Amino acid sequence: MAVSESSLPVAALCWRDGCLQILDQTLLPAAEQWVALHDAASAAGAIGRLAIRGAPNIGITAAYAMAMQTALTPDDPAVAEAGRVLCAARPTAVNLAWAVARMQTAILAVDVAERPAVARAEAEAIHAAEDAASAAIALLGADLLAGSRRILTHCNTGTLACGGTGSALAVVSELAQRGPISVLSCETRPLLQGARLTIWELRRGAIPHELLVDGAAAGLIRRGEVDAVIVGCDRVAANGDAANKVGTYAHALAAHAAGIPFVVAGPTSTIDASIATGEEIVIEERDADEVRHAGGALLTSPDTPCRNPAFDVTPAELITALVTERGVASPPTRESVLGLLATPFGQRRDA
Amino acid sequence: MAVSESSLPVAALCWRDGCLQILDQTLLPAAEQWVALHDAASAAGAIGRLAIRGAPNIGITAAYAMAMQTALTPDDPAVAEAGRVLCAARPTAVNLAWAVARMQTAILAVDVAERPAVARAEAEAIHAAEDAASAAIALLGADLLAGSRRILTHCNTGTLACGGTGSALAVVSELAQRGPISVLSCETRPLLQGARLTIWELRRGAIPHELLVDGAAAGLIRRGEVDAVIVGCDRVAANGDAANKVGTYAHALAAHAAGIPFVVAGPTSTIDASIATGEEIVIEERDADEVRHAGGALLTSPDTPCRNPAFDVTPAELITALVTERGVASPPTRESVLGLLATPFGQRRDA
Repeated sequence: MAVSESSLPVAALCWRDGCLQILDQTLLPAAEQWVALHDAASAAGAIGRLAIRGAPNIGITAAYAMAMQTALTPDDPAVAEAGRVLCAARPTAVNLAWAVARMQTAILAVDVAERPAVARAEAEAIHAAEDAASAAIALLGADLLAGSRRILTHCNTGTLACGGTGSALAVVSELAQRGPISVLSCETRPLLQGARLTIWELRRGAIPHELLVDGAAAGLIRRGEVDAVIVGCDRVAANGDAANKVGTYAHALAAHAAGIPFVVAGPTSTIDASIATGEEIVIEERDADEVRHAGGALLTSPDTPCRNPAFDVTPAELITALVTERGVASPPTRESVLGLLATPFGQRRDA
Repeated sequence: MAVSESSLPVAALCWRDGCLQILDQTLLPAAEQWVALHDAASAAGAIGRLAIRGAPNIGITAAYAMAMQTALTPDDPAVAEAGRVLCAARPTAVNLAWAVARMQTAILAVDVAERPAVARAEAEAIHAAEDAASAAIALLGADLLAGSRRILTHCNTGTLACGGTGSALAVVSELAQRGPISVLSCETRPLLQGARLTIWELRRGAIPHELLVDGAAAGLIRRGEVDAVIVGCDRVAANGDAANKVGTYAHALAAHAAGIPFVVAGPTSTIDASIATGEEIVIEERDADEVRHAGGALLTSPDTPCRNPAFDVTPAELITALVTERGVASPPTRESVLGLLATPFGQRRDA
């Protein structure tokens, strides 16, 4: 179901009248089309085809999807099945499994009759927490990068990816409010979230920007044209190794070689303390047609075999700082990362 | 002027009936369209719009263009002007200026009446030398990478880029003749020479291959899925720093971090002994529309500002070996690189 765009705010998603409205990000920037989701299956479909994306937003969407499904079928087997359907939509972002588990715990703790209301309240709490996390990340990250004027980023980590104003791009927005900056946005092949989404957000925010192909980043960093790199994350291991959109690791290598900060920003919901290192992170391999095409155009022979890992892992030793809503792990280590998790939100800890 | 494709061999260029035929690489793989060049201006246009490309092929094309122009206007001012027009077509590949200077030296050494014949003979000698260099590079490179089965490459460095069967891709082809290999070809944004041209050549050569986005290379290298990286070069400084297609430097960083060989292959015509280090290499910045589009599709807002450096520089310390027709500089240093230049072709020297 399409919803008139003028009735909805500029955001990635919106809870209204008992259903979740999402802005279909596959159509941006050409069209701003809102789609209504009504249950776990439709939400899993939207997550799988990247109509809604970004690790925090995937978690928020899954939470609302559990709430919508619980309003339809509140019994135990249905709650379990909804969680399975959602978790299968994408494997890498930990926020998905985290949000589903938190929803199931809340839902199954009460009688069937109370479940719809409890589920809705829990989803709204998850959403509100991610909004608050985004605001805190923006301030902490901008403090950390004070003085950096030429910022390079990858993929999309703004309003379209996260609650609030985003993670890495929220830091960029905060920096832009504090003084003049310019942003180099990598296009982020294969699905071009940088070219399509980050450029769209930077333009709306009137932040000076330039687009570049992913392969151009390392050379510009080496030539001294970048002061700092900041990216988001899809899953962070206990030792600080961070999975993020494919292409991130090369930027980290270049930043390290050039001696400039490489900062990872994300809510603590993205930290998976159950895995010791990035070696254990499952990397989603997506369809070959994403590589064969760009913007709808066929780039190679239609049956060319392809590799299409959606993410890569940047080892903690290349990460200058991990910025979360609970504080900054600088550098990220097992001690500093787990220290963040042990810190209640609001009691900032700089590990 | 279009030429029927069936009358011409599978190659990037062909000297026939006093004019140079080139396969228009901007149309591959969708169409195999040959275009006839008749003078310096048409050749400069073809080089500038990348209808013919690859550092060695640019040099060969410039040589034939000087011959064609000399047949039309053999006087000194015209020979000088033809050189200026050609050298302005693209700034980074040294082969262009090298071939023009060699042609001008030969042409201006004889009387006007003799110039057309001398120029044609000199162009054919340059072409033959690049063909021979390619064959020698293939053998030396394959010896160097014996045992490597999973090879990653960037851009296009085969028949479409060089005389003979290419530089880096000639090594790949030779390795494929010696035993089973598989090739990971980076798509090479913005102009997709990997997706369009290298895949086309690998398919014709029946060499197993997979296509990947440029940003995926570093992560796959880190995960142990690549045995060696081999690329071409557009200009090599005296100390071994190598300019190559944008995106190359990140692959070199990843290979170095993973401890696998990173090999640069190219004829000695690509070495510019007049510059001490890669810092002096002028990097061509191309039109923003190349970044905004892929395969004809618009990827972002049509007025998005872009950075579009066509090349980056990989420092010599990340290069395991420089393979030329005169031998291998392993590792490339000022001594080993200049040693190659001092070695006559045929007297192989492994510096």
